[in-house]
Amino acid sequence: MANLKAEALQMHKANQGKLATHSKVPIRNARDLSLAYSPGVAEPCKAIYDNKESVFDYTMKGNMVGVVTNGSAVLGLGNIGADASLPVMEGKSALFKGFAGVDSFPIALNTEDVDEFVQTVKLMEPTFGGINLEDIAAPKCFVIEERLKKETNIPIFHDDQHGTAIVTAAGLINALKLSGKSFSDIKVIANGAGAAGIAIIKLLYNFGVRDMIMCDSRGAIYDGRDEGMNDVKDEVAKFTNKDKEAGTLEEVMEGADVFIGVSVGGLLSKEMVESMNDDPIIFAMANPDPEITPDDAKEAGAKVIGTGRSDFPNQVNNVLAFPGIFRGALDARATRINERMKVAAAEAIAELVGNQLSADYVIPEPFDSRVAPAVAGAVARAAMESGVARVDVDPDDVVKRTQQLTDIG
Amino acid sequence: MANLKAEALQMHKANQGKLATHSKVPIRNARDLSLAYSPGVAEPCKAIYDNKESVFDYTMKGNMVGVVTNGSAVLGLGNIGADASLPVMEGKSALFKGFAGVDSFPIALNTEDVDEFVQTVKLMEPTFGGINLEDIAAPKCFVIEERLKKETNIPIFHDDQHGTAIVTAAGLINALKLSGKSFSDIKVIANGAGAAGIAIIKLLYNFGVRDMIMCDSRGAIYDGRDEGMNDVKDEVAKFTNKDKEAGTLEEVMEGADVFIGVSVGGLLSKEMVESMNDDPIIFAMANPDPEITPDDAKEAGAKVIGTGRSDFPNQVNNVLAFPGIFRGALDARATRINERMKVAAAEAIAELVGNQLSADYVIPEPFDSRVAPAVAGAVARAAMESGVARVDVDPDDVVKRTQQLTDIG
Repeated sequence: MANLKAEALQMHKANQGKLATHSKVPIRNARDLSLAYSPGVAEPCKAIYDNKESVFDYTMKGNMVGVVTNGSAVLGLGNIGADASLPVMEGKSALFKGFAGVDSFPIALNTEDVDEFVQTVKLMEPTFGGINLEDIAAPKCFVIEERLKKETNIPIFHDDQHGTAIVTAAGLINALKLSGKSFSDIKVIANGAGAAGIAIIKLLYNFGVRDMIMCDSRGAIYDGRDEGMNDVKDEVAKFTNKDKEAGTLEEVMEGADVFIGVSVGGLLSKEMVESMNDDPIIFAMANPDPEITPDDAKEAGAKVIGTGRSDFPNQVNNVLAFPGIFRGALDARATRINERMKVAAAEAIAELVGNQLSADYVIPEPFDSRVAPAVAGAVARAAMESGVARVDVDPDDVVKRTQQLTDIG
Repeated sequence: MANLKAEALQMHKANQGKLATHSKVPIRNARDLSLAYSPGVAEPCKAIYDNKESVFDYTMKGNMVGVVTNGSAVLGLGNIGADASLPVMEGKSALFKGFAGVDSFPIALNTEDVDEFVQTVKLMEPTFGGINLEDIAAPKCFVIEERLKKETNIPIFHDDQHGTAIVTAAGLINALKLSGKSFSDIKVIANGAGAAGIAIIKLLYNFGVRDMIMCDSRGAIYDGRDEGMNDVKDEVAKFTNKDKEAGTLEEVMEGADVFIGVSVGGLLSKEMVESMNDDPIIFAMANPDPEITPDDAKEAGAKVIGTGRSDFPNQVNNVLAFPGIFRGALDARATRINERMKVAAAEAIAELVGNQLSADYVIPEPFDSRVAPAVAGAVARAAMESGVARVDVDPDDVVKRTQQLTDIG
């Protein structure tokens, strides 16, 4: 690990960061210049002025995602600010390109003010075909995302919320097959009311889960709880915990079928797992230390355990979702990434496991090159079916094109 | 020209615009991911958090320029808006990369409000090592640039002003050699009080010219003129036209040594040139039709005539300036692009003409690959000498590095 740290630092320095820009057309002589710049460039300008939608035809916009942050919740490092967040944002852009041929560009904003953040992204809308919000602290991230979804006409996707939610849902689809249960029958406990936790229970609701309790550091969240609430938790309380159970995590865990942890390492005991229903499913995604280790979880009877770690089976890694999701959304020129597109992405990821399904393989590996193409095709299809696509595309073409653009493995 | 138009349109469509991003490091397997992204990426983040200046070492910022516009004065097309301006901005980014290896990214802002524009760029400062303002209408462009220079700590450069001014000054340095005159002795008439015109007379002032009159569509600008003034023209009136001459362009042209046109095609008559001093110098830069054609100017006695056109000699083309200027400013990690750096750029461009100097060759060709390296070296040196460089670099190294990065011809 010491070696990895030193090597990472050295690699960033030797390359002066990670992201670069380049021209897709040559600029080597006067003829090139007359086409790419003056006077030829006036033609696409005029075409876009006459028909605004043609900006997707003639410019980079249709393949360009803004990776926008304010550095207020970076990795496990917390609020380190816009400047210090840049290496993560460049990395994200590198993944977008490598996994799905999506061009993207990091915008690190020097503000923690919601209005300023929203206004800045709105003003930049002409440049981008979509916005990936990244590493923004809860609860402001919820407000920023909701407002931008309403006030822009391009996909807005906070990956820390929805990327994690989609991959978790994919894992859960497969884990339920192994335990012989269905979304409509299970009781889910989600611990951690941050960006990812909230998104996960919202997505699981869309998969038909109705018996859910979310916990934060004060225990179960319920309608009418007095302390430690906020707008988002109030919203959560409306569609979860119907019986308004109070109590600690330990208390509400009894009889649960699924535990979703996006909280603090080591917080889930073997006894708590033992108190769950038969064949419990655990997603313990605290980083770097999961809420419970896979060994302990299995000893306590867990049927399936997933974590955020690459050195354990069933890694919940957002890279399975966001490249393909934006690829599909961009190819359909979608105006948003809606719930149906998220569900379609989760199902596409889950399906790739196929008949290799086992307790240690409910989620594909991060570098499985089938994933981004499958997700892109499913998302483009869902965009068209749900009426948010600006163009009709053949999902199979989207899959094939993404296969050509994927540059991993 | 019809062919060129169709080909330009087709080229933009076939490539979905011109600009793309890519990763400078491989992302092909789990090891790559652990260095470029989680967990290795935390190291440069922490290093920058501890020492903000190291953002230049570990991120793209040190080689990344924002090309920022609101599309309010695009080419000769006018206020076509942010969306329609994108092809020009992408083209600019392509030139930055091709001529001097400068990464850059277009930001087209959906606002004509000065405060909103300034605030947006300020919030994005963490991402960029410099800002190239582009195609912003006068007089707002002056306010935006001045405010950003004061309120940020990175170079702010409105190319439509200073790029044109620097290349014009370079041409004038050489033209004066041919006419045997010096900056301190000449009378200059500048016609057109837009972005470029104002910048040219300010830069010529820094070259020692003291006898200047600027004209707009109402004729000579002078201190105390009542109509058609604004803040910038008021400022111009303070250091030009000492005798407060009123009168039409035609009237004030009499006896002038130099005419600088950034106004309207065909506006300068042969008679007006004939009324000038001996060996007059004309820069007629209206596009696409110059204020006077080279043939007419020469027939009327012009010693040297430059235009904005590539099909005439002595083309004033900004591409001779901005790539090398930003290359030098970035390599010196300059906090600004000041007057000394602009003068140094003009001198470096002029010097390359060398003993090939003639009436038809006072400015190097746009695709002369010696230009960007020479400008970069001179600008880096001037940045250090004027105290705006964050680091010491060897100007010769800057020249050599730029030679390697230049990818034209």
